[in-house]
Amino acid sequence: MVTEVGTKVTKFKVGDKVGVGCMVGSCRSCANCKEDLENYCPEMILTYGAKYYDGTTTHGGYSDIMVSDEHSVIKIPDNLPLDGSAPLLCAGITVYSPLKYYRLDKARMHLGVVGLGGLGHMAVKFAKAMGLKVTVISTSPNKKKEAMDRLGADAFLLAMGTMDGIIDTVSAVHALLPLIGLLKVNGKLVMVGAPERPLELLAFPLLIGRKMVGGSGIGGIKETQEMIDFAAEHNIVADIELIPMEYVNTAMERLSKADVTYRFVIDIANSLKPF
Amino acid sequence: MVTEVGTKVTKFKVGDKVGVGCMVGSCRSCANCKEDLENYCPEMILTYGAKYYDGTTTHGGYSDIMVSDEHSVIKIPDNLPLDGSAPLLCAGITVYSPLKYYRLDKARMHLGVVGLGGLGHMAVKFAKAMGLKVTVISTSPNKKKEAMDRLGADAFLLAMGTMDGIIDTVSAVHALLPLIGLLKVNGKLVMVGAPERPLELLAFPLLIGRKMVGGSGIGGIKETQEMIDFAAEHNIVADIELIPMEYVNTAMERLSKADVTYRFVIDIANSLKPF
Repeated sequence: MVTEVGTKVTKFKVGDKVGVGCMVGSCRSCANCKEDLENYCPEMILTYGAKYYDGTTTHGGYSDIMVSDEHSVIKIPDNLPLDGSAPLLCAGITVYSPLKYYRLDKARMHLGVVGLGGLGHMAVKFAKAMGLKVTVISTSPNKKKEAMDRLGADAFLLAMGTMDGIIDTVSAVHALLPLIGLLKVNGKLVMVGAPERPLELLAFPLLIGRKMVGGSGIGGIKETQEMIDFAAEHNIVADIELIPMEYVNTAMERLSKADVTYRFVIDIANSLKPF
Repeated sequence: MVTEVGTKVTKFKVGDKVGVGCMVGSCRSCANCKEDLENYCPEMILTYGAKYYDGTTTHGGYSDIMVSDEHSVIKIPDNLPLDGSAPLLCAGITVYSPLKYYRLDKARMHLGVVGLGGLGHMAVKFAKAMGLKVTVISTSPNKKKEAMDRLGADAFLLAMGTMDGIIDTVSAVHALLPLIGLLKVNGKLVMVGAPERPLELLAFPLLIGRKMVGGSGIGGIKETQEMIDFAAEHNIVADIELIPMEYVNTAMERLSKADVTYRFVIDIANSLKPF
């Protein structure tokens, strides 16, 4: 919620429902910034744990109030709740952007989603809203019911050579070859998770099917606004557990055990009292 | 040269200057064939060493005469010599097709070409004709003069984050990370060589630059004709050593030592006498 605006602010007024995503700054002048790809600017400043222009450390979602350049602020449409929308600005845009860029957004295409966590469950929701057929690929058979009954995925088991694209959200080291095998000719495997160690990539299956393995990292401010407007139109929010600030350390312990459905959101407004 | 045509042949007449590329058949009914991507048809028949429909083995460029379905035949424009054009139908289309598909064909883009052999030297020629800036990336410093003075490459040394795309023709196991580092945001590393063992792929550099690693294998008949017409317009042929059939075993030995500039072409017409 906007509490105060500077004299030169034109995009927002006091009372507007807004959010700030993963970025609070970028150079605004490089080729990437000029194409609304602040997320690929070499001088991009992250909302959490980075140094801001004035030398202070950014605290992101742990802050009770935040001063932001209006350029980094996203308008949250009226019909979206603030808590369920918060993860859209990170997990949401991280899967929405590659669906657009890699042209995996056409109705009746068949998309695979690898991993059904914070990113994966958003990929299912966005892809279904775009009219795609979605198959969840997971090593946890107990996620089948969840994927199909609650998130609307079309399938959990899989057939070779049937998918137009795959959004791979897994950040543990894993095999790419079976995933590449699931792709049709011209299929695209898009990685949005970043395993720390290299994965094995065999070239031949890419050659004989003109397939590709691509990456994507969050999205620009303009596209983040586009994503959130799309989410509002289709009533898409993240599945969250709303927690008070006092619960943060417990939440961190549970996160390390992957025990969350699907994102924790801190209820700052009801946790911290302004001075 | 066409010596005889069947009664239903419409594309060619006796005396036409023609060639047959890597393929002599495909199902003609799958989704790939319908989009002129016979090269990705699961039933594609290779011109050399495959079984044809009648059960005979295909002998490709070692044959003195060949019977072919007109669909697989490419018209060679008058101004191109038959010998220098022959490798265009394999090496040429192998690099031309990904330049088109991955949209690395826009003037003033900066393309890297990894490996300066049969495929690589064709990639330099086509990319230069399309107006790109071309940098050859090779572990053989003695190829610098050749790349720049004779083939028209713009550079041999390299800077990080400067390339729109790279055509990687190397079929030995090699490191991808330095190549990915050479790419700009949205850059594309396209592999047309197929190392037998897996390469190491680190996901993070792909994510933070929305880069991709793709593959491509030759090209369809329609695109092969398009490529050869483009080659004729720009006077592009392969650099070859024309050899008589008797020299084949020596040529094979030299090939195993990478001793060829850049392709051997067998002069069938002057080697074998018709019955």
